[in-house]
Amino acid sequence: MTDVYVVGIDMLKFGRYPDRTVVQLAAQAAIGALDDCKLGMRDVQALYSGNIGETMTGQRTLQLIGQTGIPVVNCTNACATGATALREGWTAIKAGLYDTVLCIGVEKMAAGMIVKKKVGNEPLPAEGLIGSETMPAVFAMVGMEHMRTYGTTLEQFAQVSVKNHHHSTLNPKAMYQKETPLEEVMGSEMIAYPNTKLMCSVNVDGAAAAVLMSEKKARELGLMSRAVRVRASALASDPFTERNLVMQDVNAVTRLAAETAYAMAGLGPKDIDLVELHDCFATAEILHYENLGLCADGEGGRLIDSRDTALGGRIPVNVSGGLLSKGHPLGATGIANVYEIATHLRGEAGARQVQGARIGMTHVVGLGSACAVHILEKA
Amino acid sequence: MTDVYVVGIDMLKFGRYPDRTVVQLAAQAAIGALDDCKLGMRDVQALYSGNIGETMTGQRTLQLIGQTGIPVVNCTNACATGATALREGWTAIKAGLYDTVLCIGVEKMAAGMIVKKKVGNEPLPAEGLIGSETMPAVFAMVGMEHMRTYGTTLEQFAQVSVKNHHHSTLNPKAMYQKETPLEEVMGSEMIAYPNTKLMCSVNVDGAAAAVLMSEKKARELGLMSRAVRVRASALASDPFTERNLVMQDVNAVTRLAAETAYAMAGLGPKDIDLVELHDCFATAEILHYENLGLCADGEGGRLIDSRDTALGGRIPVNVSGGLLSKGHPLGATGIANVYEIATHLRGEAGARQVQGARIGMTHVVGLGSACAVHILEKA
Repeated sequence: MTDVYVVGIDMLKFGRYPDRTVVQLAAQAAIGALDDCKLGMRDVQALYSGNIGETMTGQRTLQLIGQTGIPVVNCTNACATGATALREGWTAIKAGLYDTVLCIGVEKMAAGMIVKKKVGNEPLPAEGLIGSETMPAVFAMVGMEHMRTYGTTLEQFAQVSVKNHHHSTLNPKAMYQKETPLEEVMGSEMIAYPNTKLMCSVNVDGAAAAVLMSEKKARELGLMSRAVRVRASALASDPFTERNLVMQDVNAVTRLAAETAYAMAGLGPKDIDLVELHDCFATAEILHYENLGLCADGEGGRLIDSRDTALGGRIPVNVSGGLLSKGHPLGATGIANVYEIATHLRGEAGARQVQGARIGMTHVVGLGSACAVHILEKA
Repeated sequence: MTDVYVVGIDMLKFGRYPDRTVVQLAAQAAIGALDDCKLGMRDVQALYSGNIGETMTGQRTLQLIGQTGIPVVNCTNACATGATALREGWTAIKAGLYDTVLCIGVEKMAAGMIVKKKVGNEPLPAEGLIGSETMPAVFAMVGMEHMRTYGTTLEQFAQVSVKNHHHSTLNPKAMYQKETPLEEVMGSEMIAYPNTKLMCSVNVDGAAAAVLMSEKKARELGLMSRAVRVRASALASDPFTERNLVMQDVNAVTRLAAETAYAMAGLGPKDIDLVELHDCFATAEILHYENLGLCADGEGGRLIDSRDTALGGRIPVNVSGGLLSKGHPLGATGIANVYEIATHLRGEAGARQVQGARIGMTHVVGLGSACAVHILEKA
């Protein structure tokens, strides 16, 4: 099987785009990613589109930037939507179907999209009725459990948000680019204890795109100098656990995807230089330190205290500002993570550059559930 | 790359299931397909789910039949949704990621789903406002054009519906199983000239599933005797044509997908023993005879007159009853077509068996657009 490389990337500054359509956002990111590697739509052999809110998003994007008749696959997978589109593109190149594919993730977020809605004529499960399947509730409960089990403090969770907001001041594409001190984070409105409003991800519009290419083609076109190898691409859904009899088990699905990715890459957590992980709530980041093996179980609180996960530390996490401050446009997030990691591996991340970064990891997890982990490596 | 085989199949009788959820329908088809090849959920390494109306359908299906943590990809692609899910599963096996995957297509149809709806905040195109992007209008106009250009008659179009309704009397899984004579077809309510009500596809609920397997695994498990090889899997979107500046070009996209499939299989139309094609309206079947190369351009009307496309003819088309009488639950149709062809290639089609069938073709085309063509071959 050929190795697959990310050769072109782009993302829009995350924010509010009331006057732009979803496909206009998608088209802009797509053109940016193609420009980044000096290709045009005629060079693209297939499109993998990740978007939750609309239908036939991939094809409608092509109506703006070039109807060339290529296969288009539209994927949805909750918060892992963009990452799933990227993975389907990667799979197609691995299968030898194409040398060059375009992957787009895009979302315009409606107010309240975060709350679980009744689907079809299916009864809501009991825990849905009392709110424990809404995302703030799930991530509050897993945070509370971590506090009880390991003595993790509210301040430690809040420091996640302080760190990621600080990182975002160095990222011109983040929604917020503003220092947010501890007092402000802890003093903001309580949403679901221990997560205050400033410890919840930001509901924004956004789009990101990546051009993937087979190794042969990337060499042929002289694109290897800025290329990033996809060393592992793992996807998992809820395994059967005691916990997910009563609520979503974001820990188990993340551990499963991470184990799969590490095994595929032949690497371990110590080999990773930076991570973009799914900090949909501040509590989630601490849990995922442990789920991804960045520290031992129960050590997440101490890891944030050590500042090892801040820029300049041993294993910087969410240097982009993360979902907490860069923002979280569902379908776009998975590919925006790849944009961030690739930018560092290329050495093009400017003020927030993780020095000497050679291997990076992206992680998204959507309730329902879908968890995707990618490991990327400097070519 | 490994060859990929369909080793297990099932579909529910298409109809109305007001008391069943989408995932209950999906789960029943999935269990049926696994039973068909004597496998269980623990043998499945990834799930590819095609469904338009709901979200996280694949994962919610697994909540009923077994949460094993496997990767789940949810695909949508208009009427090509199920076929796209199947193709993504096929691609993953080709890529060497898995030996055994499950593909499910499912839909519960809401009234009015057939009419193009306003999406997001995007303006409707002018032709949408005047109705020419609704499906009955598109397939009326292309039928009218065929009448003007080639002298095709209303009666010839109506005979498509007579044929497919007759076929459905031999298929216990068809929605309608009732002879529908020419006078009845031509005399039913006019929807969009030349298509009467009995020349429009049937809005039903349905589900279908297929287990795909690598050649090595299928041999190892002794499943080759009833296996069907996926000889080609092609997907296309709108190419740029003069026509699709003003309306959907269902002809161009079908021709593109068919050419791709024939090239991939190293076969031509003469090698095909039976076809399940996208007779969403009676006019469409005549057009697709030509688009798929079953006859020369302009000869579609004469092909239906010749009875070559009826059961017992040279190249039987829509022996299942087709979308016109079996029914058309959008997300399920692509995989239901594969069910039909595989059943014939196995020699298990009972009263409607196409004798000696060795190679069959499936075709779906969704406006927007996505066209998938698969060529299947007896192992």
